[in-house]
Amino acid sequence: MTTTERVELAVIGRQRPAVIEALGAEFTLHEVAPGDDVAAALGPAAERVRGALSNPMVGLSAEVMEALPKLEIVALFGVGLERTDLSTARERGIVVTTTPVLYEDVADTAVALAMDVSRRITSGDRWVRAGGWAAGGHAGAGRRFSGKRAGILGLGRIGRMLAKRLEAFDMRIAYYDPRPAPDVDYPLHRTGLELARESDFLFLCAAGGPGQRHLVDADVLAALGPEGVFVNIARGWLVDEAALVDAVVSGAIGGAGLDVFDDEPNVPQALVEAENVVLTPHIASNTVETRADMDQCMIDNIRSWFSTGQATTPVP
Amino acid sequence: MTTTERVELAVIGRQRPAVIEALGAEFTLHEVAPGDDVAAALGPAAERVRGALSNPMVGLSAEVMEALPKLEIVALFGVGLERTDLSTARERGIVVTTTPVLYEDVADTAVALAMDVSRRITSGDRWVRAGGWAAGGHAGAGRRFSGKRAGILGLGRIGRMLAKRLEAFDMRIAYYDPRPAPDVDYPLHRTGLELARESDFLFLCAAGGPGQRHLVDADVLAALGPEGVFVNIARGWLVDEAALVDAVVSGAIGGAGLDVFDDEPNVPQALVEAENVVLTPHIASNTVETRADMDQCMIDNIRSWFSTGQATTPVP
Repeated sequence: MTTTERVELAVIGRQRPAVIEALGAEFTLHEVAPGDDVAAALGPAAERVRGALSNPMVGLSAEVMEALPKLEIVALFGVGLERTDLSTARERGIVVTTTPVLYEDVADTAVALAMDVSRRITSGDRWVRAGGWAAGGHAGAGRRFSGKRAGILGLGRIGRMLAKRLEAFDMRIAYYDPRPAPDVDYPLHRTGLELARESDFLFLCAAGGPGQRHLVDADVLAALGPEGVFVNIARGWLVDEAALVDAVVSGAIGGAGLDVFDDEPNVPQALVEAENVVLTPHIASNTVETRADMDQCMIDNIRSWFSTGQATTPVP
Repeated sequence: MTTTERVELAVIGRQRPAVIEALGAEFTLHEVAPGDDVAAALGPAAERVRGALSNPMVGLSAEVMEALPKLEIVALFGVGLERTDLSTARERGIVVTTTPVLYEDVADTAVALAMDVSRRITSGDRWVRAGGWAAGGHAGAGRRFSGKRAGILGLGRIGRMLAKRLEAFDMRIAYYDPRPAPDVDYPLHRTGLELARESDFLFLCAAGGPGQRHLVDADVLAALGPEGVFVNIARGWLVDEAALVDAVVSGAIGGAGLDVFDDEPNVPQALVEAENVVLTPHIASNTVETRADMDQCMIDNIRSWFSTGQATTPVP
């Protein structure tokens, strides 16, 4: 490689214009659709690509790494690692970076969804807009948020930021995590089921790693009970969605605030028709400010790697 | 009065069934519609009524007090005093009680509305239910909530509870209040306008006393600016609602979360049609738990007054 040659990057799936623009000015970019055969799509460039950009919902499989023999770095937009083959990356010495600048937004979204469901904000707005209030009706009562029992499934960075927020509402916080946190005073339950039994609000904040299907199933939801609220800002596939639909429709739980679903962007029709749920389109980190921070974080990782040999936010 | 005679109470406007049931078992109740001529509606009982129940949106005017010569106590459901003639009550020695058990719920509602608007929760739910996400659209980005500048107009009990909650979101808090609070560290601004200029979120938490029309007007909203969010959980008439509609529709402010309106239950049509507002039907204290606490508080005040001569939560 001569000094006039630009480093080549594969861009897997849609990336944000600011990232494409900034990196396109310094690197040669090859955009590849997520479903494509990467080797075929890149042609001879596959042999030259030294970096890849992707997002957690697409990730980077062992197969794609295989097709890129000179790959040094994978920069992911977001923090989910479940669709990127970390062990292959480690074996090959490929650095994987995420954008660990979104935790506050995700924790905020969890609080917003829980309050919205319990205090009937979105359903109240729907009722006002439909003319129910003006017609002389009386709004149904919600349930108090402050002072209740919050169960956090997965006490990682998001779970901790959520706990800090909930403390200001005088909530009693408990958690379940396969790796207990020695530095917190919150009671640790032995299972998610036990936690659900002692919670008014159950927040799923677990990382969506492989082999973790259905952390929340029919039994956990039954334990949460008819006044309980379930909130998911983690991954849809960590929940038995059919059981969740049943629990919402039957009243086995009081309601749910859901930002993620098993088969996005498809949401089960029974949820779309339910009054006691709030459904958001995977927007937990989708703010102007955080997306700009995430853009910059990806740009910084790629730039830093190819100028200094160090990524700024590598996965350990 | 002999010991077998029951104390008679006037019930002005709709009261909750639990209150009617509990007090009806011990007192003789005379229900009067809010618009009625109270003297005429009560007939000879007006001369015997010793207590009245009302709510803040109806209150108890000097005229009604006039019609009830033996009135000793007015028990209000809620905490608003703007429609009850306190000076006449004081002159006459009539005790006025409120139900000061709703502050947490109201502060929670303020947080919920602010987050909902900035993070586009309700509009996201509407978009998911309408099929926009499933059709392959991309959700518009919201604005970050944590870490922003919160301006609190009116640092009473609700404003303080709100501030405590917002601190957990790392917000920078400032306030305006005609009576500065010596015991807090939050910066005090000299006017609401100045506060709005330095705020990302402006929360109206002022008491709705007489002579306080339009604490928030076109100038305050313009100062809040096109990315600012206005939240009202106080009273609709404290805001120039026409100016608010203009600001929402023109984009002079970013959005609004409104639980109260100038002419409830009527909401201006332009707000009903706006995407950047969340509209709730005056539900700030409307939870099962708080309404039960408020019921009990009214019952306790009346019982206590007529058995011990002391109300439990009199207005000072």
